[in-house]
Amino acid sequence: MNDSTLMEKIVSLAKRRGFVFPGSEIYGGLAGTFDYGPMGVRLKENVERLWLRMFRDDRDDMFGVDAAILMNPKVWEASGHVKTFADPMADGKMFNTMFKTSVGAGEEASTVYMRPETAGGIFTNFKNVMDSMHPKLPFGIAQIGKAFRNEIAPRDFIFRLRELSQMEVEYFVQPSDWEQAFEEWRKTMHLFAEAVGISQELLHELEVPAEDRAHYSTRTIDFEFDYPFGRKELWGLAYRTDFDLSAHADASGTELAYLDEETKKKFIPHVIEPSFGVDRTILAILVSAYREDALGGETRTYLALAPRIAPIKAMVSPLLKNKPELVAKAREVRAALKKVHPAIVWDDNGNIGKRYRRQDEIGTPFCITIDFETLGELPAGGGSASGGKDTVTLRHRDTGAQERLTVALAAERIRSAIE
Amino acid sequence: MNDSTLMEKIVSLAKRRGFVFPGSEIYGGLAGTFDYGPMGVRLKENVERLWLRMFRDDRDDMFGVDAAILMNPKVWEASGHVKTFADPMADGKMFNTMFKTSVGAGEEASTVYMRPETAGGIFTNFKNVMDSMHPKLPFGIAQIGKAFRNEIAPRDFIFRLRELSQMEVEYFVQPSDWEQAFEEWRKTMHLFAEAVGISQELLHELEVPAEDRAHYSTRTIDFEFDYPFGRKELWGLAYRTDFDLSAHADASGTELAYLDEETKKKFIPHVIEPSFGVDRTILAILVSAYREDALGGETRTYLALAPRIAPIKAMVSPLLKNKPELVAKAREVRAALKKVHPAIVWDDNGNIGKRYRRQDEIGTPFCITIDFETLGELPAGGGSASGGKDTVTLRHRDTGAQERLTVALAAERIRSAIE
Repeated sequence: MNDSTLMEKIVSLAKRRGFVFPGSEIYGGLAGTFDYGPMGVRLKENVERLWLRMFRDDRDDMFGVDAAILMNPKVWEASGHVKTFADPMADGKMFNTMFKTSVGAGEEASTVYMRPETAGGIFTNFKNVMDSMHPKLPFGIAQIGKAFRNEIAPRDFIFRLRELSQMEVEYFVQPSDWEQAFEEWRKTMHLFAEAVGISQELLHELEVPAEDRAHYSTRTIDFEFDYPFGRKELWGLAYRTDFDLSAHADASGTELAYLDEETKKKFIPHVIEPSFGVDRTILAILVSAYREDALGGETRTYLALAPRIAPIKAMVSPLLKNKPELVAKAREVRAALKKVHPAIVWDDNGNIGKRYRRQDEIGTPFCITIDFETLGELPAGGGSASGGKDTVTLRHRDTGAQERLTVALAAERIRSAIE
Repeated sequence: MNDSTLMEKIVSLAKRRGFVFPGSEIYGGLAGTFDYGPMGVRLKENVERLWLRMFRDDRDDMFGVDAAILMNPKVWEASGHVKTFADPMADGKMFNTMFKTSVGAGEEASTVYMRPETAGGIFTNFKNVMDSMHPKLPFGIAQIGKAFRNEIAPRDFIFRLRELSQMEVEYFVQPSDWEQAFEEWRKTMHLFAEAVGISQELLHELEVPAEDRAHYSTRTIDFEFDYPFGRKELWGLAYRTDFDLSAHADASGTELAYLDEETKKKFIPHVIEPSFGVDRTILAILVSAYREDALGGETRTYLALAPRIAPIKAMVSPLLKNKPELVAKAREVRAALKKVHPAIVWDDNGNIGKRYRRQDEIGTPFCITIDFETLGELPAGGGSASGGKDTVTLRHRDTGAQERLTVALAAERIRSAIE
């Protein structure tokens, strides 16, 4: 399978199975926008919730914000975006890629930008978080939200978008502590890659050389991923010194300093910034998970998604849909398993092999089937050594292997896989 | 306490304790925008997750989408927003309240609107959801996301915003089934109000009379709430017939119909729309939860938030911070309780009474204190009948009452309160 074939297959599966649809599709689309479908929403939510857990909620030094997309335009003057957030045009004229809109009516209308990155909403809330939470250094602020960039050439599916989601941390440290914090976040980023199932073989660190770094940054690492269309930036980790807080303090006339209570010294903290594009993360996950193999003599497609981010955790199915006692028992089993996680679906459509393949294709890690052995009605000469009444079969997505176990043990398999 | 005093107190608490900050505050703000702080983010997430659970994940007939904010402008021509989504101006001129921006560069630039409501992204994905999920009627699509309205006079804190979040369901039914579906969603909306702790006494249903309804709607209920600034619309429930799907089918030239496999008839489903503004829901929750009382001879302020949506579920504290064995034991207890929920915080700042008051003010339902009795070191003549080694005190927010119990039982109290 060559790389463009792989991309075509992923884009096709994403649409066919409800992960990602082209934006405004029935109206001919809108370049650079995509919509998440029923499976994509769940995948995205799971990725974002896991990120919040690892980058915010499992730590005592992290705080969340959710800032507005529309901000006072002075934010983007201070950050340098009004001057420098530009792409070269074909005719040599530079083109600012911030989207503009007009807020207010008539003579009071003023030009406002749609934020080109979420970080601005973190720096401008530094003082609010300090004043409300009274944190001690080091501490950080995390945010997930949308950002907008008027890309001249949006491309590569959900890789280069005009409307995207970002997950960003700004972590504030004593200037002397930046290297330690940088290394810690670097490790956490690798742990996150592992947790969401991004292939370690396709992930690479690029030490950005001095000439390519922002002038204020002493160190930046790009986390690059081997997409089918080439090695591209997935995430960034940057040491940004006190550039942002100083710029916003100067421009706003607000003191954005930290008072060290021990030394009684006031200073502007330095910043480490781990930054993630959500959509390109989703694409890296899909690329890492996409598999084709032969199972039972037939080719199949499956997504080897990490169970904790898979949209559906398990499918429950009666072996036959026209046997009321099988259906009733299967409903009972499903209700019990739903207590482990809400994303336990029902499927009684078509034969059992087809049901498995449908779940394989959306990355469901487990399929549970209720048959006559579950009811204690063994077919003549049938039944398995480990089985018996109230046992079910649990099928594993990646291998197709099935095991016979109690419902309680099936619940435990699901619980431990998604924890 | 009069109503404007109550609003002032809520706005002040929201800022002081990290719930809601004015948007772009250090730059003098941007009217009609607000940012959620560390506590507000958690409250908002909890409300949205509970909504997703009740309106999407606990049901087999509901599917999610997450559509782009920037859509092809034909969407808003077909929906009627380009023509009619307007406010009267002082000089009698009508003013369209959709925000416009320009997408693309140079000659290829085109005017695009920021979506004024999330529903457009649901209707335009009706066919995609049908094709990928193959649902049978009745079924629905749920979405949470931002919407933007260039309000001439944004006001009343987070009630009337220029940038807001919405939670919307479009539920598709056979035309003859609309009344039953309408009643079912009406009940679910009341269950949701109860679950998030919106005061039943402040919530009212308004049957919108025919002359105030959209021309295509046979029935609309406004759920109104008694805010301190008056009785205002909180949520809406509308029967929209086939107006939206028909309009988009006509304008796009795409068939948006459902084929009934039994009767072999094709028709455009009718729609019931439960619609929620997230920010005004948050405000209704804060208004419902705000309390002042006297406890132990001192006045106090607390938020009687439903435990499942409270930003912090419990605070763990050593009675004294200068006793290493108390601190070590308290750390151990907190680690154990964090397995129940990540939002279990630590506080050893100031005296125990002050710590309780701080948690009361942000609505934390439980405070757990580790003292000498926990260590098995009873003060002379001290100790409680039910206590002893390894027991802790658990304080209830609303009453201030304390009980002595084991850590396992404290964990169970938290678990059952947030389920």
